[in-house]
Amino acid sequence: MDEIESSEDIDAVIICTPTDTHADLIERFARAGKSVFCEKPVDLDQSRVRDCLTVVESTGVKLMVGFNRRFDPNFAAVKECIEDGRIGQIEMVTITSRDPAPPPIEYVKRSGGIFRDMTIHDFDMARFLVGEEFVSVSATASVLVDHEIGKLGDYDSATVVLVTASGKQVIISNSRRASYGYDQRIEVHGSDGAVSAENDRPFSIDVARREGFTRPPLHATFMTRYRTSYVEEMAHFISAIETGTDISPSGSDGLAALVLADAAARSIAEKRTVTVS
Amino acid sequence: MDEIESSEDIDAVIICTPTDTHADLIERFARAGKSVFCEKPVDLDQSRVRDCLTVVESTGVKLMVGFNRRFDPNFAAVKECIEDGRIGQIEMVTITSRDPAPPPIEYVKRSGGIFRDMTIHDFDMARFLVGEEFVSVSATASVLVDHEIGKLGDYDSATVVLVTASGKQVIISNSRRASYGYDQRIEVHGSDGAVSAENDRPFSIDVARREGFTRPPLHATFMTRYRTSYVEEMAHFISAIETGTDISPSGSDGLAALVLADAAARSIAEKRTVTVS
Amino acid sequence: MDEIESSEDIDAVIICTPTDTHADLIERFARAGKSVFCEKPVDLDQSRVRDCLTVVESTGVKLMVGFNRRFDPNFAAVKECIEDGRIGQIEMVTITSRDPAPPPIEYVKRSGGIFRDMTIHDFDMARFLVGEEFVSVSATASVLVDHEIGKLGDYDSATVVLVTASGKQVIISNSRRASYGYDQRIEVHGSDGAVSAENDRPFSIDVARREGFTRPPLHATFMTRYRTSYVEEMAHFISAIETGTDISPSGSDGLAALVLADAAARSIAEKRTVTVS
Amino acid sequence: MDEIESSEDIDAVIICTPTDTHADLIERFARAGKSVFCEKPVDLDQSRVRDCLTVVESTGVKLMVGFNRRFDPNFAAVKECIEDGRIGQIEMVTITSRDPAPPPIEYVKRSGGIFRDMTIHDFDMARFLVGEEFVSVSATASVLVDHEIGKLGDYDSATVVLVTASGKQVIISNSRRASYGYDQRIEVHGSDGAVSAENDRPFSIDVARREGFTRPPLHATFMTRYRTSYVEEMAHFISAIETGTDISPSGSDGLAALVLADAAARSIAEKRTVTVS
Repeated sequence: MDEIESSEDIDAVIICTPTDTHADLIERFARAGKSVFCEKPVDLDQSRVRDCLTVVESTGVKLMVGFNRRFDPNFAAVKECIEDGRIGQIEMVTITSRDPAPPPIEYVKRSGGIFRDMTIHDFDMARFLVGEEFVSVSATASVLVDHEIGKLGDYDSATVVLVTASGKQVIISNSRRASYGYDQRIEVHGSDGAVSAENDRPFSIDVARREGFTRPPLHATFMTRYRTSYVEEMAHFISAIETGTDISPSGSDGLAALVLADAAARSIAEKRTVTVS
Repeated sequence: MDEIESSEDIDAVIICTPTDTHADLIERFARAGKSVFCEKPVDLDQSRVRDCLTVVESTGVKLMVGFNRRFDPNFAAVKECIEDGRIGQIEMVTITSRDPAPPPIEYVKRSGGIFRDMTIHDFDMARFLVGEEFVSVSATASVLVDHEIGKLGDYDSATVVLVTASGKQVIISNSRRASYGYDQRIEVHGSDGAVSAENDRPFSIDVARREGFTRPPLHATFMTRYRTSYVEEMAHFISAIETGTDISPSGSDGLAALVLADAAARSIAEKRTVTVS
Repeated sequence: MDEIESSEDIDAVIICTPTDTHADLIERFARAGKSVFCEKPVDLDQSRVRDCLTVVESTGVKLMVGFNRRFDPNFAAVKECIEDGRIGQIEMVTITSRDPAPPPIEYVKRSGGIFRDMTIHDFDMARFLVGEEFVSVSATASVLVDHEIGKLGDYDSATVVLVTASGKQVIISNSRRASYGYDQRIEVHGSDGAVSAENDRPFSIDVARREGFTRPPLHATFMTRYRTSYVEEMAHFISAIETGTDISPSGSDGLAALVLADAAARSIAEKRTVTVS
Repeated sequence: MDEIESSEDIDAVIICTPTDTHADLIERFARAGKSVFCEKPVDLDQSRVRDCLTVVESTGVKLMVGFNRRFDPNFAAVKECIEDGRIGQIEMVTITSRDPAPPPIEYVKRSGGIFRDMTIHDFDMARFLVGEEFVSVSATASVLVDHEIGKLGDYDSATVVLVTASGKQVIISNSRRASYGYDQRIEVHGSDGAVSAENDRPFSIDVARREGFTRPPLHATFMTRYRTSYVEEMAHFISAIETGTDISPSGSDGLAALVLADAAARSIAEKRTVTVS
């Protein structure tokens, strides 16, 4: 690692280590003047993230956080459609995000809970699409899939409603189980229309038989579902470094999503709508 | 009206008058021994509904409330799919219900508010599909479509989350505006799968041009969108009278939906999750 | 029947009797000054049809032939899309028409063969959509479904290619068997785009399970599939009589489709492209 | 080139040169003991192809012809579905294949005509899917897109019907123009069901507006449409060489498709169904 820090041939570093090592590594490489791409999250603790971002800022290096879904071709097309004004002003967004099956219980233990582990992607997507910060968070959660998850005080099925100051609403629907594959959809309803991104499929045929017309199940894992997004994400990181242009999503995007995750957890605990500043 | 009450040739009465006349008319015809079909709601006031239902019960006549959507072929097929066990245990339901345009402001004034006027159909659908009562209601609402609606203290864009004792979650998403037509969809996510009812279209062609593939917009009104459901609803009413079988949705279904509507309004006012008993 | 002919209260007659009675009945009612709607075909023999149409013409009454599919909402929308110029000049049309199962063998014996019984509807649709007469017919046919049909010298699986003088091509694909229901689709490819009418479904849900996403099978019979078209067809007949406007499809449309059917049979027999004048 | 032939490090050669150099190069590398992948066609002349294949056979090297579409994930899934017996016995196949725009006229001049240049892929697909040789070919063709193509004696819009000895029918529909992108679809109708592969899209969103629901146009070129198939094709070639297993499609597959193309041209010229042995 010392070698990386001291090497003049290395401009940037990609961090894919366990979460609890992220903040330290980011700071270390930032101080060495390296641009950093780090898989989400920077840290599970807001104040640790804030400290880390302060260090990064002081060094002037670029930090990109791995919210890869922004680079999914369908979701990027939804964003572009919004920006082109084709659906008018955003009014309501629905993000459906369901995993095929719960992760191993050992993973869940260290995950920081469903909001910081799973919904965090949807919080970032909500911010990315709406382009306005949220002022209130209202969450609902249950244990319907795996009682072991419940014993940890965590949930496997959750609904979160976010609202902006102007009243735009976002619904996020999460489940740790979907027998039919990795269910990832977005729809945005606006004043002049709506745009939706349907599920991506590994291949697409339709088999007609006496019992009906059957298309194949969805992707079995996020690795195949989001393959293109990982390629595009890395291309963006490299291009931003080479051309010196802005990088996105940034460390502060990572922090903003974490703030929403923590607010969701508080909303559950206190059975009320939580205000976010 | 006296003639109707005294006629021995008339077994049943269909009430499609303004809302504030419903409860009185129901009581009057019930006392005359007539079966009654009444458009929803029985009344906008819970205690008035309770009194009315007590009268009906004492007479022994049948009362059917016009939640016609239960009779929509697609939604009925969703219900059947659930009952056949094809998706396992219900976990999460999403009901999307958007009107093409807000009603006249004069109508809104007497409507009882979005939850008692519009969402009431979705509350009934939620109860119909889930088959379990809800214990908590959490609502979010904005004025995004028509400021006149806001001036009345009402809303035009709303999200409601319902939860049952076992943790099943229902999301209802309402808007008084949809440029692309009457948007009415349901999806039910269960332990073994999911079932969805897509929007019905007045006709179905796909036009491919340089700019893409375009299918026609949705129905412009509920009269065409739910045409079959009205026919089927009436067929059920008549058949239940003729055969002496149970009638559904009943007066108590009407009351239960109203209870949820009132809880949603309270959730907004108090910015918290409201418990329903 | 004498009563019908002599009644002054009766303006029009609807003939739904067996095929071999059609021409005689049409002539008789036409001579009595009644407008006539007759289920297709007028007769299985071209010269008998010609004679009948001569009689009808001499009486000046209106004759409508029951090519109901022109009145199907989806197919009518395809026609309208073409006429609006949205796909430019028609280049190639594909008509897929498959029955769920072969008719009883007794029916097949008197049917006049697959081209005059089944494809006849598609010949009419081809003429309706293209709006130009065909100059050549090339047919291919097999017995793949029911050997009893083959023993009668008839076929159960057929492909017909029609071409207009300007080179527009129509493909018709017929089968007497489709396990998944009544398969009725059209697509029209033009110089500026294409338009297609997908299959109509009795209801529309999508069930997602481990094995995939399944939508229900198609209609089981033409009675449900084409229900609306029968209503619209009759409305057109009545309206044309009441308003004195043109009626369509006419007796000569019936004849033109029969000419194509006979040419298809000849194409098979002679293994060549048959020219039609 | 001498170096390639004499190099002991080179096991296989990939030929992507102009068509008129293919046969010579194949022979030369085959004699040098190299396995050969050659873009279709081996040659535009049947007898030259036969001679070339004789040479290849005498050397014992493997020859693969670049019918890449067999490796498209959707079409491969169609094939698998057929082989799994999910649709029973094949009865009728429809292959739709339309280019966004005609190639440059200089290309058309040397292309060998639409059947040997464009339909050749569909002939191979027909053979691949049906798994039975065809005994008759009936073709229809027009000039609807570009009169320059017609002046060369070639066509831009064509329909070909192929039949096997057992009566299975394949329809191929080709056009050199499709404003909405690269239109590539297959459907296979069998005794127990049907399977279809819809068009692949570069990305998939649905934009709902007053005028309807619009999805993006299709791929603009075969390079993006068939990207995965090229990767898979090459993976198969390399794997077959490394493991010594059968290679497919082979040189004789290339010849068989050419025989069908020539029969189609003859069918047009002689306005009849041509028998193929």
